[in-house]
Amino acid sequence: MQINGRQIANKIREDLKIDVENLVGQYGMPPGLATVLVGEDPASQTYIRNKHRVCAQLGIASFRYDLPTDASQKEVEDIIDNLNARDDVHGILVQLPLPAHLDEPSILDRINFAKDVDGLHPMNVGLLAMRGRTPTSLPCTPSGVIEMLKASDIDPEGKTAVVIGRSNIVGLPMATLLQQANATVTIAHSRTANLPVLCRSADILVAAIGKPEMVQADWVKDGAVVIDVGINRVDDATSERGYRLVGDVDTKGVEKVASAITPVPGGVGPMTIAMLMVNTYRAAKAIFEAKQS
Amino acid sequence: MQINGRQIANKIREDLKIDVENLVGQYGMPPGLATVLVGEDPASQTYIRNKHRVCAQLGIASFRYDLPTDASQKEVEDIIDNLNARDDVHGILVQLPLPAHLDEPSILDRINFAKDVDGLHPMNVGLLAMRGRTPTSLPCTPSGVIEMLKASDIDPEGKTAVVIGRSNIVGLPMATLLQQANATVTIAHSRTANLPVLCRSADILVAAIGKPEMVQADWVKDGAVVIDVGINRVDDATSERGYRLVGDVDTKGVEKVASAITPVPGGVGPMTIAMLMVNTYRAAKAIFEAKQS
Repeated sequence: MQINGRQIANKIREDLKIDVENLVGQYGMPPGLATVLVGEDPASQTYIRNKHRVCAQLGIASFRYDLPTDASQKEVEDIIDNLNARDDVHGILVQLPLPAHLDEPSILDRINFAKDVDGLHPMNVGLLAMRGRTPTSLPCTPSGVIEMLKASDIDPEGKTAVVIGRSNIVGLPMATLLQQANATVTIAHSRTANLPVLCRSADILVAAIGKPEMVQADWVKDGAVVIDVGINRVDDATSERGYRLVGDVDTKGVEKVASAITPVPGGVGPMTIAMLMVNTYRAAKAIFEAKQS
Repeated sequence: MQINGRQIANKIREDLKIDVENLVGQYGMPPGLATVLVGEDPASQTYIRNKHRVCAQLGIASFRYDLPTDASQKEVEDIIDNLNARDDVHGILVQLPLPAHLDEPSILDRINFAKDVDGLHPMNVGLLAMRGRTPTSLPCTPSGVIEMLKASDIDPEGKTAVVIGRSNIVGLPMATLLQQANATVTIAHSRTANLPVLCRSADILVAAIGKPEMVQADWVKDGAVVIDVGINRVDDATSERGYRLVGDVDTKGVEKVASAITPVPGGVGPMTIAMLMVNTYRAAKAIFEAKQS
């Protein structure tokens, strides 16, 4: 079975559109998302454009700050300070990576963590990691994966899960969320011995490595659930763009063994932006409610 | 082999005493640790007394705030605010657990995380979890375990590690520190299936469960390193106190199989307080240096 991320993301967006309408009805103001982009990386520009397009579809106000590549630390920080203070902005997203001359941690830590809709502020990372605490936002991609499992009636409780990759954005929070769903989680990485053997022990296997089609059929236990977070460009002369997108998993081979697999594209990808919208809505709701009380 | 925690902790304390003297020479002020105890729990009183005794031995100034059981939220918060502002206090330790009427997260989050020598502030938890970031303090018990491994020439890199238990104070940060030392780490817990089988896969097995002698010899791989974080009281009529202390591991049985094991008492226990002193020294040094620059 392929898990259809587009379909699940569409359902989340439809539900969210109604939630946003209700919020506007109750508080007289839509949720607002501000994006900060520094430089002219084409991939980043596409991501930013998509985010504003989806905001518009859902009735979420969006504000776009595009700065030149040579923007100074102070310019970026002043924008963050301004967005932190604004009543109509409830989510702040700084598009990564930033140009090398900027101090990325200082900029990200400056975001009021109540408006950290990426869930990447250290305060939110800490609140996510701690039992009994709750972050203001969950990181978009891993929480999107959890939503896909829910929508597919796959309960991680009591299962073994292996997460390959330990990035701040995907691998580490993914492992935390699966562990909090009561899976027994192992984080694998470049220093892991016998990776294929370890992967074959997993009921749920998450690949977040960034290496095209690295996970092969003989790495996968019969009936396992395989989540492919990778989005890699590989050269393809037959394609108009000159490349095609593949995941970290050899989908054709693995889908013969797995009970469920997320395709690339159309799997995890569409969930990430849907969860960003959910986070923006929730951040706005929390801010509105805090002001009333 | 038994790993002698007392001996390793003594060495750390001896080195630290010299570091403290040098710091006083350089900045004219000793590191200062303030403790906040609410209520009259005898175990907590013993812990607090020990901390102040070790501070005195090392030349660290210490300040003790003991409040009655019915102290109000505001009283405790005012003390935290005062300690945050004081120039002679560089570490603030709130003894847990707090009485049930107090809002524990609010009190702990109020500590300036530069003075959070327990390493349990969400900001420090987040900075610890993130690759490429550094917390002001590492949690004492897990960082003590890492020091024990170092002192015993045991390098986690490339090894499999299983941590049983997922508490904020031990299990979760222990898993993070082992993963950052490039072990392949699995967190086991009450919902884990086939726990003995999983434990037998571990090159390094850490027990932080709080169940007396739960880990048996047949749970342990031949030659594994076993770290016993448990400190449990079990009734013992032959003892003067009426009880004796045992760990989470059946030491007698397991030490026939393991290549190294930490005893209880005299294993991890002495490391925790030594690391608290290290954290206080480092916090003071960082604060002094930040003031100079």
